[in-house]
Amino acid sequence: MTKGTSSHWVTGVSEISAEEMYIRGYAMSDLVGAIPFPGIAYLLIRGVLPTRGQARMMDAIFSSILDYGLQKSGTVAARAVVSVNPAMTAGLGAAVLAAGEYALSPEDTGRFISTTFAQWKDSGKPMDEAAANLVAELRAAKRRVPGFGHQVFRIVDPRSEKLKKLAKEQGVWGEVNEWYEAVHRAFQAASNKPDLVLNDVGMLASIMVQMGFSPAEMCGLAIISTMPGLVAHISEELQSGVRNRLVPESHTEYSTARRELGPDLRKAGW
Amino acid sequence: MTKGTSSHWVTGVSEISAEEMYIRGYAMSDLVGAIPFPGIAYLLIRGVLPTRGQARMMDAIFSSILDYGLQKSGTVAARAVVSVNPAMTAGLGAAVLAAGEYALSPEDTGRFISTTFAQWKDSGKPMDEAAANLVAELRAAKRRVPGFGHQVFRIVDPRSEKLKKLAKEQGVWGEVNEWYEAVHRAFQAASNKPDLVLNDVGMLASIMVQMGFSPAEMCGLAIISTMPGLVAHISEELQSGVRNRLVPESHTEYSTARRELGPDLRKAGW
Amino acid sequence: MTKGTSSHWVTGVSEISAEEMYIRGYAMSDLVGAIPFPGIAYLLIRGVLPTRGQARMMDAIFSSILDYGLQKSGTVAARAVVSVNPAMTAGLGAAVLAAGEYALSPEDTGRFISTTFAQWKDSGKPMDEAAANLVAELRAAKRRVPGFGHQVFRIVDPRSEKLKKLAKEQGVWGEVNEWYEAVHRAFQAASNKPDLVLNDVGMLASIMVQMGFSPAEMCGLAIISTMPGLVAHISEELQSGVRNRLVPESHTEYSTARRELGPDLRKAGW
Amino acid sequence: MTKGTSSHWVTGVSEISAEEMYIRGYAMSDLVGAIPFPGIAYLLIRGVLPTRGQARMMDAIFSSILDYGLQKSGTVAARAVVSVNPAMTAGLGAAVLAAGEYALSPEDTGRFISTTFAQWKDSGKPMDEAAANLVAELRAAKRRVPGFGHQVFRIVDPRSEKLKKLAKEQGVWGEVNEWYEAVHRAFQAASNKPDLVLNDVGMLASIMVQMGFSPAEMCGLAIISTMPGLVAHISEELQSGVRNRLVPESHTEYSTARRELGPDLRKAGW
Repeated sequence: MTKGTSSHWVTGVSEISAEEMYIRGYAMSDLVGAIPFPGIAYLLIRGVLPTRGQARMMDAIFSSILDYGLQKSGTVAARAVVSVNPAMTAGLGAAVLAAGEYALSPEDTGRFISTTFAQWKDSGKPMDEAAANLVAELRAAKRRVPGFGHQVFRIVDPRSEKLKKLAKEQGVWGEVNEWYEAVHRAFQAASNKPDLVLNDVGMLASIMVQMGFSPAEMCGLAIISTMPGLVAHISEELQSGVRNRLVPESHTEYSTARRELGPDLRKAGW
Repeated sequence: MTKGTSSHWVTGVSEISAEEMYIRGYAMSDLVGAIPFPGIAYLLIRGVLPTRGQARMMDAIFSSILDYGLQKSGTVAARAVVSVNPAMTAGLGAAVLAAGEYALSPEDTGRFISTTFAQWKDSGKPMDEAAANLVAELRAAKRRVPGFGHQVFRIVDPRSEKLKKLAKEQGVWGEVNEWYEAVHRAFQAASNKPDLVLNDVGMLASIMVQMGFSPAEMCGLAIISTMPGLVAHISEELQSGVRNRLVPESHTEYSTARRELGPDLRKAGW
Repeated sequence: MTKGTSSHWVTGVSEISAEEMYIRGYAMSDLVGAIPFPGIAYLLIRGVLPTRGQARMMDAIFSSILDYGLQKSGTVAARAVVSVNPAMTAGLGAAVLAAGEYALSPEDTGRFISTTFAQWKDSGKPMDEAAANLVAELRAAKRRVPGFGHQVFRIVDPRSEKLKKLAKEQGVWGEVNEWYEAVHRAFQAASNKPDLVLNDVGMLASIMVQMGFSPAEMCGLAIISTMPGLVAHISEELQSGVRNRLVPESHTEYSTARRELGPDLRKAGW
Repeated sequence: MTKGTSSHWVTGVSEISAEEMYIRGYAMSDLVGAIPFPGIAYLLIRGVLPTRGQARMMDAIFSSILDYGLQKSGTVAARAVVSVNPAMTAGLGAAVLAAGEYALSPEDTGRFISTTFAQWKDSGKPMDEAAANLVAELRAAKRRVPGFGHQVFRIVDPRSEKLKKLAKEQGVWGEVNEWYEAVHRAFQAASNKPDLVLNDVGMLASIMVQMGFSPAEMCGLAIISTMPGLVAHISEELQSGVRNRLVPESHTEYSTARRELGPDLRKAGW
């Protein structure tokens, strides 16, 4: 009996036999073709079949980030890696590691939304009052609210509007989204910035929380969205024939002066 | 001027401005919603818009591997990693590294198919004659043909048949597939194994070659297919609360006897 | 002018010319042979030449973790990866990702020691009084102190004693270590557990903080300590000929029952 | 009984009990302090205690690569990764993946030396005759010999000479090295390039083969040599506060023109 030890493994994701694979209990041969890949992804991660609307929303989530050309550190890392180690897996491995705190992280926004939503539900207070209180606290603590603001867009972010429209059409819009919009309105009012947008990252995060994804899963979905672009970049790099990607000398600054070892060694007691 | 140096980067994948992202030249705001994610993946990697049939086939490719439960080394590695370092990116990074020579590698099959197909086209010989010659050579060199055979299935692999039917319906079936089937027939005949199947990995590889993907890109597509399952496994592991996954002691054998350091050090001259 | 942009790189670690490499300003051809590898590692990371004592202590730090056989999740992950993708880099990459919160992390202990040490210095209070206050606060908040306790050792951990003796002999023992020992004494007293040891991880962390390493660097040093063992394990796995490492079926439990797709799809509205 | 299955694990690297760790059979508490870290690394990987000379040579091997500043793709990848995901493990993971075919790979040189050495021993021919034959074959096949040539150094590479002198002093110089030097002399003669050096990578590889390391292990040793420099670079990057490392726009060229989606979609049949 191994239950309760760290070498006992429990899984509900899938089960394999010589003839068939069961995905969350369903025979894979039934599943493939019956619902599209983004819907199967929902089933794999959430454990239940999606509605058509949820499957359609999953497609939109996977289509939401895609690629930032060479303006993404993960792409630079992946291409640098395959310029010396020409293997697709090595490049993808490096790129995946470059999702984090400062890029590609709906995770933090998701954690903010799900935590504050739960706190509001527990409080029993009216939504707008709770949102105003929350914003006041955050501003007092000089903490920023993730998902608000954009370099260019003012008043509305057209990408957010498109996602919201789709979520409503597909029946996945709900109380979590309403809560996050209330926080946005409260923030606009308290900071006197009526043109501050609720950006696409924020909107997407609120939709994923509403759909039941955990913050860690949201990070995974964001990474999946970038995978086809990464495959394209790595393939492009492999075909380019460039070897040993470097930082250009013109962009490099050396901050240590040259020194003599002998005297310094003696000073250090050698 | 940096052209021709390893710090000059050329990309056709995407281009970013403050307001818009261009994916292979198309405005992302136009693209999203117009074609589904698997179709956008085709555009990102192949550089041109897919037909509806090609987009539909991409969905089938992404739905082809999905997950092998705990019967895949990459899943074991990913869950072991997050049992000590509870980060989605670390788990996905480890899993990606576990695609290779002995698993998840349509890459080798793809390389075999594209190389032998090109050789046949150059030879000008009739397809069946060329296939028979190739099989004779491979058998003489005791080299196996990738993509043939299955533990359980005989005569036909139902998964291959389903993929073939779909490829024909969607207009992506072509000369590469015909060539690979000819090699399969020649192999059945020469080895006197009429019930040896052309398996799903082989069928899928021939379809991806026909669609124009390189072997490295095929590896990337296979990895994308497994990503939702990996997100599900890593999330399940993170929620399990199990720490420090181990090989069970009952499955471990130590092959070095205990020894005394002192005498051995002296023998080694210390 | 690129200064201040994210494509401007500043480094003081090393500088390369066609004929010579400068490590923290010293010509590599002078350096190699003059001081041993652990001493060069100190120079690379800390930026200044070590004393003989600091170099000797670096050797002890690198010798402190080494390997836990198959009782380390990172080793399991690395061997699982190379059982399907037989590449040393892939295996090492996976293993490195398995240093984290629940294993191989002097990082957290280091952060605790350096933070509380700085707070004590700022407070101007006597050491033992400050330590008692800190322990009282931690106990009230039910927070544990990292680096205390061991499964087997009581009163003293012989490995800690050995490290302490060496640190004193080599002149790297200092006020940080005294502070951490004071916290340990205060904890023993407050919790009435006089036999609770200050373990090897705690002792090592306090020495690294005293030597000036940051928490992130301490994580790096711990990983370096495990690298030769990982090379040995991966090499052993590659030579074993075992393919596709799995969790044994006897240790696997499936938590999802099989179900019929058709009815469930209809219920989901397809 | 699990022997012979892929979930049966055999290891001789180390064995753990609650009180003691056995490294290749020796109690770790005896080992630490008795021989320096590079010697313990030899024991871990080769399975036997080193002589003093072998331990000294291991130190030289670990001191042989160290760092190439920002002129190494792996460093660029690692710093790009931590500029968005500020975690030491993520940076080290990415860097490790950037050892490969075109950089940091004594692996290929090692494979060349060990294979041709074994062939010569089997042949029973005099060394210089066998070396001349080998070089003739390689030149006929237009294959290059790894480890020969340098951008700057002519006739002798001072780094190689230093390694050779050390190997002789420490008693680790042997027949493999003699063989590789014979190949070098034969190549100088056949190509009429008397000033072509046997470079440091070649010399180091021949020493590692002579010491009994496999090509995969040689890759691992090269990576260990670079680890302290990587820790230094990643720490420097984390402290720099720079976020989201990018390729400078001035070094980026976009190769896809902007296009209209509507007409192209219609042409593709949507």
